[in-house]
Formats: sequence, structure tokens, C-alpha cells
Amino acid sequence: MESREVQLRQRPVGMPENEDFAVASVEVPDPRDGQVQVRNVCMSVDPYMRGRMVDRKSYVPPFQIGETLTGGAIGQVVRSRDGDFVEGDYVQSNNGWREAFTADGNALTKLGNLTAPASAYLGVLGMPGMTAYVGLLEVAALKRGETVFVSGAAGAVGSIVGQIARLRECRVLGSAGNADKVAWLTNDLGFDYAFDYHGGDLLNHLREGAPDGLDVYFDNVGGDHLQAALFHMRPFGRLSLCGAISMYNDTEPSPGPNNLTMAIGLGLTLRGFIVSHFSHLNEKFRSDMESWVASGEIKYSETVLNGIDRAAEAFIGLFTGVNTGKMIVNLED
Amino acid sequence: MESREVQLRQRPVGMPENEDFAVASVEVPDPRDGQVQVRNVCMSVDPYMRGRMVDRKSYVPPFQIGETLTGGAIGQVVRSRDGDFVEGDYVQSNNGWREAFTADGNALTKLGNLTAPASAYLGVLGMPGMTAYVGLLEVAALKRGETVFVSGAAGAVGSIVGQIARLRECRVLGSAGNADKVAWLTNDLGFDYAFDYHGGDLLNHLREGAPDGLDVYFDNVGGDHLQAALFHMRPFGRLSLCGAISMYNDTEPSPGPNNLTMAIGLGLTLRGFIVSHFSHLNEKFRSDMESWVASGEIKYSETVLNGIDRAAEAFIGLFTGVNTGKMIVNLED
Repeated sequence: MESREVQLRQRPVGMPENEDFAVASVEVPDPRDGQVQVRNVCMSVDPYMRGRMVDRKSYVPPFQIGETLTGGAIGQVVRSRDGDFVEGDYVQSNNGWREAFTADGNALTKLGNLTAPASAYLGVLGMPGMTAYVGLLEVAALKRGETVFVSGAAGAVGSIVGQIARLRECRVLGSAGNADKVAWLTNDLGFDYAFDYHGGDLLNHLREGAPDGLDVYFDNVGGDHLQAALFHMRPFGRLSLCGAISMYNDTEPSPGPNNLTMAIGLGLTLRGFIVSHFSHLNEKFRSDMESWVASGEIKYSETVLNGIDRAAEAFIGLFTGVNTGKMIVNLED
Repeated sequence: MESREVQLRQRPVGMPENEDFAVASVEVPDPRDGQVQVRNVCMSVDPYMRGRMVDRKSYVPPFQIGETLTGGAIGQVVRSRDGDFVEGDYVQSNNGWREAFTADGNALTKLGNLTAPASAYLGVLGMPGMTAYVGLLEVAALKRGETVFVSGAAGAVGSIVGQIARLRECRVLGSAGNADKVAWLTNDLGFDYAFDYHGGDLLNHLREGAPDGLDVYFDNVGGDHLQAALFHMRPFGRLSLCGAISMYNDTEPSPGPNNLTMAIGLGLTLRGFIVSHFSHLNEKFRSDMESWVASGEIKYSETVLNGIDRAAEAFIGLFTGVNTGKMIVNLED
């Protein structure tokens, strides 16, 4: 069995480009005892992967030049020599950026009964949804009726953050990158206030949307967004530091917010996290979120590009704002 | 009765200067019913007062030009028309920067039985000691045996932070502004590692003093210190944001740490606080700290300047590093 796979051809400098990636054809080995052969149905591209393309120590080791990239994927078992899997089983793995693979069964997660399309398990029911869930409810310790601002609000994480906050009867503000996304947030997802951050003066928007200040800021963006939010926090506010997409393509370290000392007088808490810190909540998340999605209380959107050849384009599109909701690369014919 | 008092003559720009302050003589009114007349024994100068000399909204309102400054003071009752006070009682008030005053009895805190010299109630047994206590044990949630770094370690707060951490069997690192202070930290206070920050390369010092990284950073300094500490935190480390003395005389906002995004992967928590957020712990603090001071488990040092005429000099000295431990202005003859 052949698999086309995306390899890191060279390390991106600044904004990633198509030339930084190469598609290669690879022979997929037959499964040995305890192994499973899987054909991917869809794969994920996520902003955090940009950090792994830089050669530096971080919470995940860097990708190596010439190696096939990895990331979230949903696939179906083609051949199994592991008693826990049968042909047709849907599995979640970290073996994205490729059409097919063979792996030890115990490195895969069997999804069991799907209550939504497979791609949803890369988004609202997968890592981004879980990130929103724990970042808001655990890290920021959201309380009913508070005022919440989320940046990157039309993204895979932000769009779920806002809706969970609405379910908790919170006032929700969101920033996004164009007018269509802003309209989607307020018209379809129930955000109380949304704005296009390209208009500048973030702080004025926050004052207009939340005259009494913010209790929680869910940061996907960093940079100016974090600084503006700090200026508008209420006493004892919490800032959930999830991502900093505005800074991921910086070639030099960027200065932090110039008003971090406001945290002292206001008693603010800034807390960083990644989703794997909360894996003990995986089952509770899946149960809660599947029920919210099934009932329509939480909606989701996907931007889908077809074929492994478009995986690099999909990844780059995360930084130019191509996606509304989750960016998915469909790998089915 | 006459009182000499220190007034704000003009708002300091950058480093405060003697000319920014003026000493005036004021008549102290006789106490009316419910009031008490007090002669101050000593007064406190503290770094946070610098922020109140700027005309901006903050957690305490700014000082006004021409008005007598305020701040912590310990005094003795001279005349009382409040049944709760008798002549000779020691009282704690916010009526510092003056030799004497008359105030409502219910605006004063009666100290009761002093177990240490009066000035200690402006330092180790007062606001700075309480700041160290809650900032380390509550805000940073220090655990036994962790590794702690405190900046401004020879100051009124930092010197107590380090010793409380030692009592919890922690490894303790501290930075200070000259060799004598560094020697005091390691020889007298039991710090495991101390260094003069003027030598530069803070991060190298942290690596040498804490090869396995930091669990807790108690920040009195901000700026380069905060950035260096962030680079050396262990997973799930906590940063207690107490002060930023390196930035208090800045005339422009200074950029924040350029590595704040490290908080994401490491799951770090940065939490700001002021001591008044924890006033429910006042009694527990006083009881614990009086016993630690009495047993010699916690030592303290004071730098004492005599007379109200030297109050401005004492205040300015906080920023040039004149003090080891608590800076006190003695107001007794």
C-alpha cells in the first residue's frame, strides 16, 4: 500500500510557504502482530504545529527536516493484527499529514460509536474542543454570568469557547479577522459583541462591548490582543493563555504586554496550559460536548480542503485567516 | 501641638528627587469626641508609594500636589477621647509622613501587646511581612521542598520571603544590589544561593543556583528579572507578581517579558496581588510571624534614618538600594 505524505523540506522563516513542504510517496509496511494498518479519512492542521517547525526546545520536540510531519488524524482500520481492532473501526491518531500508515494498536485511540461526522473528532469533539472546554472551565475557572472575551473567536478553539460561555449565561465578546466571521459569531453563534481586529483600537472595542470590564480573557492571539485585554480586566480577572497565533511567525522574540504590572493591583491570574495537562477530563469532555453538539447547543463550522496535496496550503491558511471554524484536510477520495 | 509633615511639592519625573518634596509645619487639632491624638514613633517608606505620585488611576488614588503624603506609621496615643484608647497605646495607622495627627479612633489599629520593637510592625510584623507571607504561601501556593527564587531579596519583603521558604525546607535563591547584601542573604538568612544582579546575565545565575529550574518566582522587580525567571521555570511553576521596582521610575511604559508564551507549554501561573486582598489572614499572619521572630527562625534588618527631614531621602533610597531589609524613618527624639 502506498501513502503520500507531507515532509518538512526546510524550516519556514516567518510566514510558512508552500516550498517549505514536500509531498513524497512512501510504501506502508504490512502490519505485524499487535499492529494495525489505517487509511486516514481526514487530518488536522493546527497553529501549534508552527512551533514544532522551529529548531528549539519546547513542550514537544521539533520536527526534523525530511521527516514526515505528524498531527491529529482520523482514519479507518484497513487490516488489523491487534485483537482490539477490526476492519472499519474509526481511530484517532497523531499520524496525520499522510494518507495511510501502520502502527501499534496501543498507539491508537478507538473512537467507538461516532455521534457526528469523523472530521468533528478533529475539531469540536477533538483537541480544539477539549482545549476550549478545559481552558475556559478549568484554567479560567469561569463562573456563571461573567463577561468573557475570546480572541481568534472564529477559529476552531475560539468559536467553541464563546459558545460554552454562552451556555453558562455569560456575556461574550469575540475578535475575528473579517466581516463574514464577525457576522457568523453574532448571528449564528450567539456572541453578544464581535469585531474585526483589523480595524485597530482593540481597547475601544472592549470598552464598547463590555462597559464594566472583563472577568475572563481567553487568549489565542497574544501580542496587542493580550495587552488590550489586560487594560480592561476587572479585579480578580483570569486570563487563560492558550495560544499566540499573532506571534508564531515572528523571526525575533516580540516584547510582552507593557501593562503586565496591572496584574498586581487588580489581583489578576494569567495561566498557560496545553490540552494534554487535562487528559484526566477527556471522558467528561466527550460526554458533555457530544450532548451539546447533538442538541444543537454548540454549533461548529469547518473549512475543508481536499487531498494531501493541499495540506500545506491548509496549514498556511491558518495564519492568513482562510478558515472559519476548524481547518480540515479531507483525505477520502 | 505642632506636626512637621512631608508634602508632595511636584510630581517626580523618573527617579524622585529631594525637590519633589517639602516639609511644612501644621497645627494638630485637639481631639473631638471619638477622636485620638497620636505622636508617631516611626513611619514607613515603601516602593508602592512611587505609583501614587503619578497622576493616574490605580488601585489606590494618586497623591495630590501640596497635600501631606500618607503611608504606614506606628504611633503612641497622646490624648484620647475614644473609650477604646488610653494614653500610651501603640497604634498603627496610614498617617505616616508626619510627626503627629488627630484621627477618629475607628480609623486606627490598636497594636496591643508588642512582642518586638515598634518599628518591626512596619516591617517583618507589618505590611511587608504580610506581603511576603501571603504572596508565597497563598498566591504562589508554595509546597515543601520546592525551589524558590526571590528578587529584591535583601529588601523588606524579599528577605522575609526567602526565610519563610527556608522554613518550608525549600531551596532558596535571591538577587540583590551589592556584595554586602548578597553576603547577608547567604551568611545570615540561610539563602542557598544569592547574587548581585548588576553582574548581568541573570539567567546564568539562575542556572547555577537552581540546575533543575524554579518552581516559584516571587517577583519584586519586574523587567529583566521576570523575563529571566520565566526562562528557567519548571512545568506548572507559579510566579507571584508582587512588585516591579525596576520599572517604577520609568517615564514610558516598558515592554513586558518577551517569553511570556512559555507559560503555555509549561502550564505556568502568573498571579498578581496586593496585601489587602488577603486581610482575612491578618491574625494568622501576626500569630505565625510573631512566633517565628521570637524564636529567631525569622530574622530581620532595618535601615533607620532619623527625623521627618530625612523621610524623602529614605524614600528615594529605596530605588538606589540604600536599605538592607526595611527602610524606617524614626520620628522619636
